Amino acid sequence: MKTKDRIVHVALELFNEFGERKITTNHIAAHLKISPGNLYYHYRNKSDIIARIFDQYETTVAGLFDLPQGRHITLEDRAVLTEKLLDLLWNYRFMHRDLVGMLENDEALHQRYQAFANHATDQIAMVYQRMCDSGFMQMTPEQIKPLALNVWLLCTGWANYLRTARGISEEEITPAHLNQVIYQLTYLEMPYLTEVTKEETEQLLEQFKPF
Amino acid sequence: MKTKDRIVHVALELFNEFGERKITTNHIAAHLKISPGNLYYHYRNKSDIIARIFDQYETTVAGLFDLPQGRHITLEDRAVLTEKLLDLLWNYRFMHRDLVGMLENDEALHQRYQAFANHATDQIAMVYQRMCDSGFMQMTPEQIKPLALNVWLLCTGWANYLRTARGISEEEITPAHLNQVIYQLTYLEMPYLTEVTKEETEQLLEQFKPF
Repeated sequence: MKTKDRIVHVALELFNEFGERKITTNHIAAHLKISPGNLYYHYRNKSDIIARIFDQYETTVAGLFDLPQGRHITLEDRAVLTEKLLDLLWNYRFMHRDLVGMLENDEALHQRYQAFANHATDQIAMVYQRMCDSGFMQMTPEQIKPLALNVWLLCTGWANYLRTARGISEEEITPAHLNQVIYQLTYLEMPYLTEVTKEETEQLLEQFKPF
Repeated sequence: MKTKDRIVHVALELFNEFGERKITTNHIAAHLKISPGNLYYHYRNKSDIIARIFDQYETTVAGLFDLPQGRHITLEDRAVLTEKLLDLLWNYRFMHRDLVGMLENDEALHQRYQAFANHATDQIAMVYQRMCDSGFMQMTPEQIKPLALNVWLLCTGWANYLRTARGISEEEITPAHLNQVIYQLTYLEMPYLTEVTKEETEQLLEQFKPF
């Protein structure tokens, strides 16, 4: 891996492990055993590194919504989406734990984040539309939009909730803590599921039951 | 109003208008036209003032859940609860806009907040249990808990969402922005409502439709 990419890779790891606010470019350089000067040769500052992580994040989120075209989606497509979502929540768990702090002094990132959030909520609505088209869900257009927004709030608010309301620190967090999102998500979707999806959904609930 | 109470009153106002992180004890003293020394006579530091605001906040939240005992709740009780919730969201809107920042350096408050969050989610579940007892909702015990948690995430995540995803600053925020919570909340509850609550709920949706 090139130094430029290794910097982003290690920064993401450290942000996830210790929180973005606690990590400086010096920490990142020290962890990579390179000089701060070498780091600054590749990135102007921490914001610049975060912007590259956000590029990756956006691409990963886009991949989440990259459903097969030209045919109905299947329950397997939906299972794949769930797996991808779990990976995303874990691999970028720092992102929504203190988003306010991260956007506070980075107006460019804040602008980008708003466009991203808007687009992502539309994409969630699109997934539900396709679930309806495939006969897995039954919803009116009026119901899809608020459901999509509630799902967005759940998925992006969960890391913050773990931190503030449950007092789970960066060091303590496990994938199981994030998996509970699937449990909560399933209860959001449940009332709109058709008979054909019920069995898989019951299995999901068992699998992601909070401990 | 005594100086001790005026300090808390003005601090809450300034936190709501400009965000807690931007306001110092000096700002509060200046706004009250008292000396910093006079302020420190009443409160040791900003944390001490925030602790008093949190006392008020807890009392107000408790008031939200203070439903009539010894009889079934009515749709009027539910309407009153909605009104109280709207007031709460507006009057303490600073609270959940940057909670991470506020709890970051205040371990005592963080401990308190966790106990509060836990208790509040139980109280939400209790309200739904009573809605079921009154015949306004139909839910199994397994459904009540995740719904209560999703409602908690919605109500406490909304101010943060407005700030980060919608880019609405403290100065720009209006009650209408917060009222959309009721719209989203209604969609969470809708699938579990019985026939008798449907009409009132349609009216709520019209009233709180996002602009």
